[in-house]
Amino acid sequence: MSKPLISALAQFAAATAGRNMTKAAYVAVGVGVLSMVLLTDNPAYEASRRWVDILLWACLLYFVFEWLVRLRHMTRQGRLSLYMSSSAGIVDAVGALAVPTALVLGVEPKTAWLLSVLWVLKVVPGIPGLRQLRRVLVLESGPLISVLVIFLMVIFLASVAEYFLERDVQPQTFGSVPAALWWAVATLTTTGYGDVVPITPLGRMVAALVMISGLGVFGLWTGILATGFAAETRRDNFLKTWEAVSKVPFFAALGPAAIADVTHMLRTMELPARTIVIRKDTQGDCIYFIAAGEVEVDLPGKKVQLGEGAFFGEMALLGNNRRGANVSTTKVSRLLVLDLVDFRVLMARHPELAETIDAEAKRRALENT
Amino acid sequence: MSKPLISALAQFAAATAGRNMTKAAYVAVGVGVLSMVLLTDNPAYEASRRWVDILLWACLLYFVFEWLVRLRHMTRQGRLSLYMSSSAGIVDAVGALAVPTALVLGVEPKTAWLLSVLWVLKVVPGIPGLRQLRRVLVLESGPLISVLVIFLMVIFLASVAEYFLERDVQPQTFGSVPAALWWAVATLTTTGYGDVVPITPLGRMVAALVMISGLGVFGLWTGILATGFAAETRRDNFLKTWEAVSKVPFFAALGPAAIADVTHMLRTMELPARTIVIRKDTQGDCIYFIAAGEVEVDLPGKKVQLGEGAFFGEMALLGNNRRGANVSTTKVSRLLVLDLVDFRVLMARHPELAETIDAEAKRRALENT
Amino acid sequence: MSKPLISALAQFAAATAGRNMTKAAYVAVGVGVLSMVLLTDNPAYEASRRWVDILLWACLLYFVFEWLVRLRHMTRQGRLSLYMSSSAGIVDAVGALAVPTALVLGVEPKTAWLLSVLWVLKVVPGIPGLRQLRRVLVLESGPLISVLVIFLMVIFLASVAEYFLERDVQPQTFGSVPAALWWAVATLTTTGYGDVVPITPLGRMVAALVMISGLGVFGLWTGILATGFAAETRRDNFLKTWEAVSKVPFFAALGPAAIADVTHMLRTMELPARTIVIRKDTQGDCIYFIAAGEVEVDLPGKKVQLGEGAFFGEMALLGNNRRGANVSTTKVSRLLVLDLVDFRVLMARHPELAETIDAEAKRRALENT
Amino acid sequence: MSKPLISALAQFAAATAGRNMTKAAYVAVGVGVLSMVLLTDNPAYEASRRWVDILLWACLLYFVFEWLVRLRHMTRQGRLSLYMSSSAGIVDAVGALAVPTALVLGVEPKTAWLLSVLWVLKVVPGIPGLRQLRRVLVLESGPLISVLVIFLMVIFLASVAEYFLERDVQPQTFGSVPAALWWAVATLTTTGYGDVVPITPLGRMVAALVMISGLGVFGLWTGILATGFAAETRRDNFLKTWEAVSKVPFFAALGPAAIADVTHMLRTMELPARTIVIRKDTQGDCIYFIAAGEVEVDLPGKKVQLGEGAFFGEMALLGNNRRGANVSTTKVSRLLVLDLVDFRVLMARHPELAETIDAEAKRRALENT
Repeated sequence: MSKPLISALAQFAAATAGRNMTKAAYVAVGVGVLSMVLLTDNPAYEASRRWVDILLWACLLYFVFEWLVRLRHMTRQGRLSLYMSSSAGIVDAVGALAVPTALVLGVEPKTAWLLSVLWVLKVVPGIPGLRQLRRVLVLESGPLISVLVIFLMVIFLASVAEYFLERDVQPQTFGSVPAALWWAVATLTTTGYGDVVPITPLGRMVAALVMISGLGVFGLWTGILATGFAAETRRDNFLKTWEAVSKVPFFAALGPAAIADVTHMLRTMELPARTIVIRKDTQGDCIYFIAAGEVEVDLPGKKVQLGEGAFFGEMALLGNNRRGANVSTTKVSRLLVLDLVDFRVLMARHPELAETIDAEAKRRALENT
Repeated sequence: MSKPLISALAQFAAATAGRNMTKAAYVAVGVGVLSMVLLTDNPAYEASRRWVDILLWACLLYFVFEWLVRLRHMTRQGRLSLYMSSSAGIVDAVGALAVPTALVLGVEPKTAWLLSVLWVLKVVPGIPGLRQLRRVLVLESGPLISVLVIFLMVIFLASVAEYFLERDVQPQTFGSVPAALWWAVATLTTTGYGDVVPITPLGRMVAALVMISGLGVFGLWTGILATGFAAETRRDNFLKTWEAVSKVPFFAALGPAAIADVTHMLRTMELPARTIVIRKDTQGDCIYFIAAGEVEVDLPGKKVQLGEGAFFGEMALLGNNRRGANVSTTKVSRLLVLDLVDFRVLMARHPELAETIDAEAKRRALENT
Repeated sequence: MSKPLISALAQFAAATAGRNMTKAAYVAVGVGVLSMVLLTDNPAYEASRRWVDILLWACLLYFVFEWLVRLRHMTRQGRLSLYMSSSAGIVDAVGALAVPTALVLGVEPKTAWLLSVLWVLKVVPGIPGLRQLRRVLVLESGPLISVLVIFLMVIFLASVAEYFLERDVQPQTFGSVPAALWWAVATLTTTGYGDVVPITPLGRMVAALVMISGLGVFGLWTGILATGFAAETRRDNFLKTWEAVSKVPFFAALGPAAIADVTHMLRTMELPARTIVIRKDTQGDCIYFIAAGEVEVDLPGKKVQLGEGAFFGEMALLGNNRRGANVSTTKVSRLLVLDLVDFRVLMARHPELAETIDAEAKRRALENT
Repeated sequence: MSKPLISALAQFAAATAGRNMTKAAYVAVGVGVLSMVLLTDNPAYEASRRWVDILLWACLLYFVFEWLVRLRHMTRQGRLSLYMSSSAGIVDAVGALAVPTALVLGVEPKTAWLLSVLWVLKVVPGIPGLRQLRRVLVLESGPLISVLVIFLMVIFLASVAEYFLERDVQPQTFGSVPAALWWAVATLTTTGYGDVVPITPLGRMVAALVMISGLGVFGLWTGILATGFAAETRRDNFLKTWEAVSKVPFFAALGPAAIADVTHMLRTMELPARTIVIRKDTQGDCIYFIAAGEVEVDLPGKKVQLGEGAFFGEMALLGNNRRGANVSTTKVSRLLVLDLVDFRVLMARHPELAETIDAEAKRRALENT
C-alpha cells in the first residue's frame, strides 16, 4: 500500500478507536442492514445483486477493522479485558464475528448474512436519553414486574377458559392451550390479529373481559412509566440547575450542600423572546443566570450576546445598585433569578463567599473601564 | 364588473390579506376537500357530477385569489420574500398552484384534483394549542427520539427473527425481510391487521414478545409526553399568572423580578359558584385578583360584576381595614390571593410601590364618594 | 284499584319524583336494555318470547309512569319548563315517548323497540366522577381539539396518498377516497381490522408512518388527559381539605381567606393502621384533624372512636400541654396536622379566634369532668 | 419411611407452613401449569406422556401436602378459621382440592387437569408492588367506574346503531344485537379482530366514532391511573423518608408530628457516583442521611463505607464545626440533608432533643478517640 493511504487509514483508525459511534459507523450500520434486507427480497436482489454483495462485504470489513483497531487501542491502554467483557465490546465482537463464523460453519450465505441485523445493536450507546430511560425502568421495576405478573396470570386463566369453551366448536384454532395462549396474548395487548377468534357466546364474554383487562394493564403500565419519568425529569432538572450554578465563578468555592442551597433559592423564570429583563437605571435587586436561551446586553456603542450558562445583573449585588444597561431576551429563555435577600442569606451562611465576591467585583470593574 | 361588486371584492380582499384563516377559508377547505373525496367515489360522483366540479373549481379560485391578494399585500408591506419563504406562504402557494400545475402537465384530472387534499394544511396555523404541543415535542425530543430508535431496533431484530422462523412455512407472507418488517410494524404498534400472522410455535413466541414490547414502547411514549405536557402547563400557568399580575395598576411599576416575586407570593383559591368571598364589615386581610370566573360586589344600591383580570379587596391594604361590601362569586372562579403580610414584605422590598399605592388609594377614595 | 295499592303507588311516585335515579330505575334500565338485546337474537327470543315482551312493556310503563310523576311534581313546583328543557327532562321524555311514537308511526315492532337503548342515557346523572371528568374535558378542550384536528389532517393526507398508491392494485378495497378514509381511521386508532390492507411497498411505508403517528396521537391525548386529571385532583383535594377545615367549630368564624390560610398550614400525614399517634403524658405540640380513616382514643375506662371530620389533641393548644390519652389509628388514615407554631400565627392574624377558643376550651373541660 | 426422610420432610414442612411462597412453591406452580399446557397439546403430549403425567401428579401432591401442613400449623396456632376464610387459605384449598374433586366426580381427566391453572393464583401474594397497585385502584375507583360506565354506554348505543345499519346487508355477522355488541367491544378497545366489520357508509362512520371514543376512553383511563400512581408514589416516598428519619438515634425520642416536621425540613440531593460530598477541613453546616446508595468516609488509615440508613456530618452540629474527613459517594446516591439552621429550629421546638444530642456527642467523641 502507498504511504498516503496508510497514513489516512491510521488517522481513521485513531478516530475510530476512542469514540463509541463515529459518523462512518452510523453509515455502515444503515447501509449494511438495508443491504441485508434487500438480499432477502428475491426480485430486488436479482436487480442489484452486485451492489448488495459489495456493500455487505464492505460493511462487514469496516466492522472487523473497527473491532481490531479497538482491540489494539484497548490493549495499549491495558483495558483489554475490561473492554471485552463490557457490553460495547461484546457487541463489537459479535458484529465482527457473527457473519464470518456462520459462513465458515457452512451456513447457507443468505441465512448467514441475516446475522448482520445484530449491527443495529451498535447504535444503542449513541441513543441520547437512554440512561434516563434505563433509570426509569430500574427505579419502577417493582410495579412494572407486578403488572407483568398480573398480565401473565390473566393470559393463563383466560386461555384455559377459552380453550375449555371453544375447543369443541373450533378444534382447528382453539385445539390446545398453547393455541389459546396465542389468542390471549394477541387480545390482551389489543393487537387482535383476528386469525383466532372465539365464536361461542360465553367465549366472547371471556374475550370481552380480556380486552377490557388489556386496557387496564395498558393504563397501569403507562401510569407507572409516566410517574417514573416525571420524577426522573425533576431529578435531572435539579442536577442541571446545580451544574449551571457550580459553573458560576461566584459559587465555585461552595461545597455540594451550599450549591444545593443555592439551587433551592433560585427562582425559574420562563420568558418569551424580545422581553426586557433589566431596564437601565432601575433599582437592581437580583442576579440572573441563563439556564437556556440568550439575552442581549445593550451596552453603549455595542450589543453583547450572553448565552447559556452566563449570568448578568451581578453589579447590583456588588454595591452599584443602579442597572447599567438594558438587557432583553432574544429567544425564549429560562432564567434563574437569585434575589438580593437570598444572596445576603447565602453570604451570611457562607462568609468565605465575601472575599470571592470582592475580588470578582474589582476584576469586573477594571474590565468595564 | 359593476362597481358594487368590485368594492365588495376589495373589502373581502382586505379581510383576507391580513389574517391567516378567515371563516371563508375554513369553509373553502371543508367544501373543497369533501368535494375531492366525492370525486373519487364513482357512484356518488355520477349522481352529483355538476355540483362537485363547480365546487372544486370555486374553492380553487378562492385559494388562488387569496394567494394573489396576500402576495400584493405583502409586496406593499415589503415583506414579500419573508412571506414566500414562511411556512404559511409555502402552504398558500401550494394550495393555489398544485392542482393547476398538475392539470397543465397533462395529469389525468381525477388524479390532479387529489392534490387539493393539501388544502387541509391551511388549517394548521388556526389550531389553538399547537404552539404548546410543538414546544412539548421540541423539549422532549431527546427521550422521544430514544424511544423511536428503540422502536426501530425492535422492529429490525424481530422481523429478521420472524423471517428466519416463518419463511419455510409461509413463503407467501414471510418470504422476505421487507414483508416481515411490515408484520413487525403492524404488531409493535398493536394495530394487528392479521394479513401476516406467524404460525410456528417459536414465531408466535417472538410475536408475543413484540406485542408486549409494543405496550412498553407505548407506555414510555405516553409517559414522556404526559410529563412534558404537565411541565408545559405549569409554565403556561406561571406566565398567565404573571400576565394577570402585570395588568394590575399596582404592579405596573415593578420589574420582571418583582413580578415573579409577586407571582410566587400569590395563593390560588378555586371557589364554586355562589360562594361568599368577602363578608361586609369583617376584618380585611388580603387582596384578591380574579384569574378566571366572575364575582359580584354588592354595593349599596347597585351590584357590580368584576371579570377576569379585575381585583377587589384592595381597600383593606390601603388603611380602611373593614370590608365595605359583600363579594360573592357568580361562576366557578379562580382567585389569586395576596395576604397583607406578603403585601408588607413586598412593599419593604420595593419601596417605590408605596407612592403608587398612596396615589391609587386617593384616586379610588374620590371615585367611591 | 283498591286503596292500599293506590297508596303504595302514591308513595312510590313520591320517591320517584324528587330523585334522579331510584333503585327501581336502575333495575328497569338494566332489565329493559337486556330484554331488547334478547329480542333481536332470534333463537333466544323464540325460547323466551313471552317473558321478553312482558319485561319490555313493564319497563316502558315504568318509564312513562316516572315521566308523568315528574311532570306533575315539576308543575306543582312551578319548574315545568325548566325541567322540560333540562337534559334530564329530555332524557326522561325520550325514554317515555320514543318507543311508543315509533310503534304508532307504524315502524316494525322489533325495530321500534331498538329505541329502548336510549334508556341507558338515564344512568348518566348517577355516574359518580362525571363532573370531574367533564371539567377535565372542558379545561383541556384546547389541546384536545388540537390533537383531534391533527388526527383528521393525518387521516385525510394518508388516505389520499394510500388511494393514489393502491387504487390500481386493489380497486375493490382502495377504489375511492372514502374507502381509504375507512382504512385510515382503523389504522390511526391502531384498531386494524385487516379488511382493507395496503399491499404495495410504498403503500405499506405510508401505512407504517400512519401507525406510528397513531402512537403519537394516542400519547399526546393521554398525556393531556393525565395532566388535566392531575390538576383536577389537586384542586378537588384542596376543596376537600378546605371543607374539612370549615366543618371544625374552631374555624367556623373564619372567612374564606383565613380558611385557605389554614388549609395551606396543614400538613398531611398518611399513617398505616394500628400506629400510635399520641402517647399519653408526652408534650403536645399540635392538633390533628381526621381527613380519612379512624382513630381510637384510649380514655380511662372506655375507648372512643373518632371518624372522618373529627379532630383531637386540641387540649394541648388550650393550655393543658400534656397529652391526656393514647390515640392510635384503627385503619389506614390521613391526618391533617396543625402545629402549635402555625396555630399561634393564625391566632395573631385572626384575633377573633381567641374568644371562640376560650369558649370551646371551657365547654370541653366541663364535658370531660 | 426411614428416619432421615421423615426428618427432612418435617424440616420442609416447617419451612412451608409459615411463609406464603417458598421457592419450591414457585417451582411447583411453574412446572404444574406448563405441564397442564402440554397435556392439551396432542402431539407434544404423545411425545412426553409419561413425564407430563408424573409432573402433574407431583405438583398436585406438593400442593396437597402444603395445604395439610398449613392446616395443621394454623390449627396449632388457633388461627384455623381465620386461615380458611382468608384469600390465601381459599386459594390453597382450591389448589389442593379442585383437580381431585373433578376427577372423583368423573370429569374426563384432560378436562379435570385444566383446573390446575388455578395454581397461578398462588403467586398473587408474592407480587412485589401489588399493595400499591391495589391502593391506586381503590382510591381512584370513583373515576375508574365512571369511565367503565361511559364505556358500557358507548358500547350499547353503538351496537344498536350498527345492528340497525348493517343487519340487512350482513345478516351473518350483524344479525343480532349480541353479535353487534361483540363487534363494539372489539372496536372500542381498539383490538379490531376484523371478523365482524361494518361495510355500509353510515355503519363505517359510526365505527369511526367508536374507534375515536376508544382512544378517549383509553386516555381517560390511563390519565386516572397515572395520577393515582403519582400520588401513591409521593405518599410512599414520604413514608419511606419518615421511616429513615425514625431510624436515626437522634430522632428516636420524637413523636410522629416532630418526625413529620423533620421529614419536611429535609432536602433531597441526588448525587452521581464518585462525587465528593464533604471536603476535609471545610466549614460544616449540615448533617446528611443516606436514603439510597453508599458513601465512603476517608478516615486517617482506613476507609469506612456507610450504607442506606446511615448518617454522617453530625459532628458539625455538635460543636466541632470543621469537617474531619473527606466523604464521597461510591454509587449513585440519594442523600437527605438537614441544615444547621433547620436543626436549630427543630431543637427550639423540641427542647427534649438537646439532652439526647449531648449524650450522643459524648458517646461518639469517646468512640473516635
